Amino acid sequence: MKVTVWNENRHEKTNEKVSEIYPEGIHGQLASFLEEAGYDTRTATLDEPEHGLTDEVLNESDVLVWWGHMAHEEVTEEVAEKVKQRVLDGMGLVVLHSAHFSKVFKKLMGTGCDLKWREADEKERLWVADPTHPITEGIGEYIELEKEEMYGEHFDIPAPDELVFISWFEGGEVFRSGATFKRGRGKIFYFRPGHETYPTYHNKEIQKVIINGVKWAANTNTPEPVRGNHQPLEEITKK
Amino acid sequence: MKVTVWNENRHEKTNEKVSEIYPEGIHGQLASFLEEAGYDTRTATLDEPEHGLTDEVLNESDVLVWWGHMAHEEVTEEVAEKVKQRVLDGMGLVVLHSAHFSKVFKKLMGTGCDLKWREADEKERLWVADPTHPITEGIGEYIELEKEEMYGEHFDIPAPDELVFISWFEGGEVFRSGATFKRGRGKIFYFRPGHETYPTYHNKEIQKVIINGVKWAANTNTPEPVRGNHQPLEEITKK
Amino acid sequence: MKVTVWNENRHEKTNEKVSEIYPEGIHGQLASFLEEAGYDTRTATLDEPEHGLTDEVLNESDVLVWWGHMAHEEVTEEVAEKVKQRVLDGMGLVVLHSAHFSKVFKKLMGTGCDLKWREADEKERLWVADPTHPITEGIGEYIELEKEEMYGEHFDIPAPDELVFISWFEGGEVFRSGATFKRGRGKIFYFRPGHETYPTYHNKEIQKVIINGVKWAANTNTPEPVRGNHQPLEEITKK
Amino acid sequence: MKVTVWNENRHEKTNEKVSEIYPEGIHGQLASFLEEAGYDTRTATLDEPEHGLTDEVLNESDVLVWWGHMAHEEVTEEVAEKVKQRVLDGMGLVVLHSAHFSKVFKKLMGTGCDLKWREADEKERLWVADPTHPITEGIGEYIELEKEEMYGEHFDIPAPDELVFISWFEGGEVFRSGATFKRGRGKIFYFRPGHETYPTYHNKEIQKVIINGVKWAANTNTPEPVRGNHQPLEEITKK
Repeated sequence: MKVTVWNENRHEKTNEKVSEIYPEGIHGQLASFLEEAGYDTRTATLDEPEHGLTDEVLNESDVLVWWGHMAHEEVTEEVAEKVKQRVLDGMGLVVLHSAHFSKVFKKLMGTGCDLKWREADEKERLWVADPTHPITEGIGEYIELEKEEMYGEHFDIPAPDELVFISWFEGGEVFRSGATFKRGRGKIFYFRPGHETYPTYHNKEIQKVIINGVKWAANTNTPEPVRGNHQPLEEITKK
Repeated sequence: MKVTVWNENRHEKTNEKVSEIYPEGIHGQLASFLEEAGYDTRTATLDEPEHGLTDEVLNESDVLVWWGHMAHEEVTEEVAEKVKQRVLDGMGLVVLHSAHFSKVFKKLMGTGCDLKWREADEKERLWVADPTHPITEGIGEYIELEKEEMYGEHFDIPAPDELVFISWFEGGEVFRSGATFKRGRGKIFYFRPGHETYPTYHNKEIQKVIINGVKWAANTNTPEPVRGNHQPLEEITKK
Repeated sequence: MKVTVWNENRHEKTNEKVSEIYPEGIHGQLASFLEEAGYDTRTATLDEPEHGLTDEVLNESDVLVWWGHMAHEEVTEEVAEKVKQRVLDGMGLVVLHSAHFSKVFKKLMGTGCDLKWREADEKERLWVADPTHPITEGIGEYIELEKEEMYGEHFDIPAPDELVFISWFEGGEVFRSGATFKRGRGKIFYFRPGHETYPTYHNKEIQKVIINGVKWAANTNTPEPVRGNHQPLEEITKK
Repeated sequence: MKVTVWNENRHEKTNEKVSEIYPEGIHGQLASFLEEAGYDTRTATLDEPEHGLTDEVLNESDVLVWWGHMAHEEVTEEVAEKVKQRVLDGMGLVVLHSAHFSKVFKKLMGTGCDLKWREADEKERLWVADPTHPITEGIGEYIELEKEEMYGEHFDIPAPDELVFISWFEGGEVFRSGATFKRGRGKIFYFRPGHETYPTYHNKEIQKVIINGVKWAANTNTPEPVRGNHQPLEEITKK
């Protein structure tokens, strides 16, 4: 399993709080526990040529993990389209937190992907809504985060194929915080937590969910549909 | 209920067979039975300024019906984006036949929307897969069309929110030929039949389904979500 | 539109608090605002012969509204099976609050339908999760109830066909509190609020949702599927 | 992975054609290729004590495969309820062909599970409707069976969580022939082919789908929900 972790890597360079929590960058932290879980993991960031997402990198990636926030608009149309196409062709995609507003996610959803938000050091509790789902393997019936950013409904996404987590927030909102989508031959997992100023990706349960999400999102040699003009498989009676 | 029927209106100008079947254009025929069903119906076509889809027209339309085929690429990005946005804001959308490949539908689906196809004068039988759905009101358990174009799986769409019809084709394929999707505050109905060289939109059962589809797709004064920064509704304990 | 409101009508007889809030019984209150909304409404209760649900009553009902709690086990198998069958045949069903544990709902879901619960005079806030849904017509983006019983996840139901509301509770839980299901030719709406010791069914927004739910659940002359042995519609080549 | 294959094993005893195709019984044939695929597989049949499904057997089974047809009614209520409960508790279930009418499947679906059928030695072609699904691993975009029994829509099941295959039949019908459902903590895969008088379970592609289905249906240590009375996780303000 080959995993690429993409991060815009901007907050880390300008916000000391962030670089203290994630000295190797958010991508470094994500890659670190994914590598430990046994995946062959590399990273790519916005400021690299082609944002680090060359055809070669994309073609070799079974799953792409995406974190972005302040620089969504700096991702070129070309790269965003290419990533979208790779997902439709079968690459898995794990979309984290503020990447709900990334070009790639918005293109794949077809909706605005907007939501309510608030930074108020408040408690989030993620409840498991689907206790059959392999993404919930090895965790309890909820995950508690002492301080996180709030995201609230209505989250402008298509109804997910599967709703895995629902979040409760101290300030009075709820959110569909773990959701899966299938697009083309690709599988997508959106997972809400991970505001840059909190140590969320150091949390072992959050790590477990992301590790599970990567595993779930990988394609397993499913059929490649043939499209376009098609000869009949049965004789057609000319009437 | 205000309905706008949009048609690229090109086959009608160049293919005699089409103009014989639809002397008032495909849009004229669609508008005719929708008007008869009691909807306040107007038409718009590709070659009008702004393709006939000014802000005023879009804002006044409860539901937009879309037929296009050979000229998808001539629809401007600007108009396609505006239509998409109106759907997210609550306008219903009924997408017919080859409009599976329209810019508007592809943007709203987030997928390639491709499929298998064949023109071979073959029989199509549309089976009702959801006998609770108001779109099936007043029809039998299947609709038979003596001659139609074939569309076959895999149809590259997200799993529909509701699967209303499944088609059987004489040449050996199947197709999810009636499917609903919700995007933002808007409801979308895709309905397969309607190749330009067959008199499909003169068929009373097909007309009934489209009339039902328009009714179903109209928004009924549902809440308008507020998004962006949000003040807490409950006190947040500073820890 | 003919609506029957069914209530076990037991708390009303033994708990003064309940009979003060609902002097005509919970069924009386529900019937009162449904009648006012223009539906031809009658009531039926547990202690009537056949629980008030004779074949005639069921066959004449377009939609059945169900409230039960302490006496689920007193509903006979025969009546529960008959109601289930009528739903599969096309009668709409609106299942309220503690009726999540009714025989009829459990039979139709195929799951245990259990949940977390607590009576603690706490606040519930129901967020709209599907702003396209006709059941949300005319309300805001959330409904607030100052005091209600808590129901918490995991709610043991199949993944709903549509998730309309998600509840936030003061004590830290969330709940899928408005959900639709299709079974056979019938449509089912589960709606959470309505603990007997709170005046929930006097709340105008709650009333609006139930009125909308009844309208949505009614069947609209959709096809009646034919099942069993079936002659071929096309010639089968004997090979 | 521990798999139990259950079969009523009746046709095999009375119909020579069946016993010629499946000299070890349908269960024997299913178990043979599942064992070969690396699963620890045993069989159980109707005429054994408790139908071979003791508490011990059920508790040890990660996945149960079920084939039944003429003797559904001979399965005791007690065993059917026990199997249903084990599925809700997390055992996977693969339901084959005529087991659509088994007590266990009907209880878990909540619907009638009826369909159209015909025995006419006709061709079936199963098209992949979900090319992301692990159940389709390693097969092509369709599977062709020269002769099978026909099952036709409307199949009286809840809308599946995932629609994996759609069948085309020579005689003019279609069928949702591969479908997944989640109930409680359990995963269910219904797969249509396998009429007793055809050598369907000797077909390598059909075997591959069943092997994949068993793998998919197994629970992977997901959370066990706690239900019932629940203490608040947050302080509730007494107003």
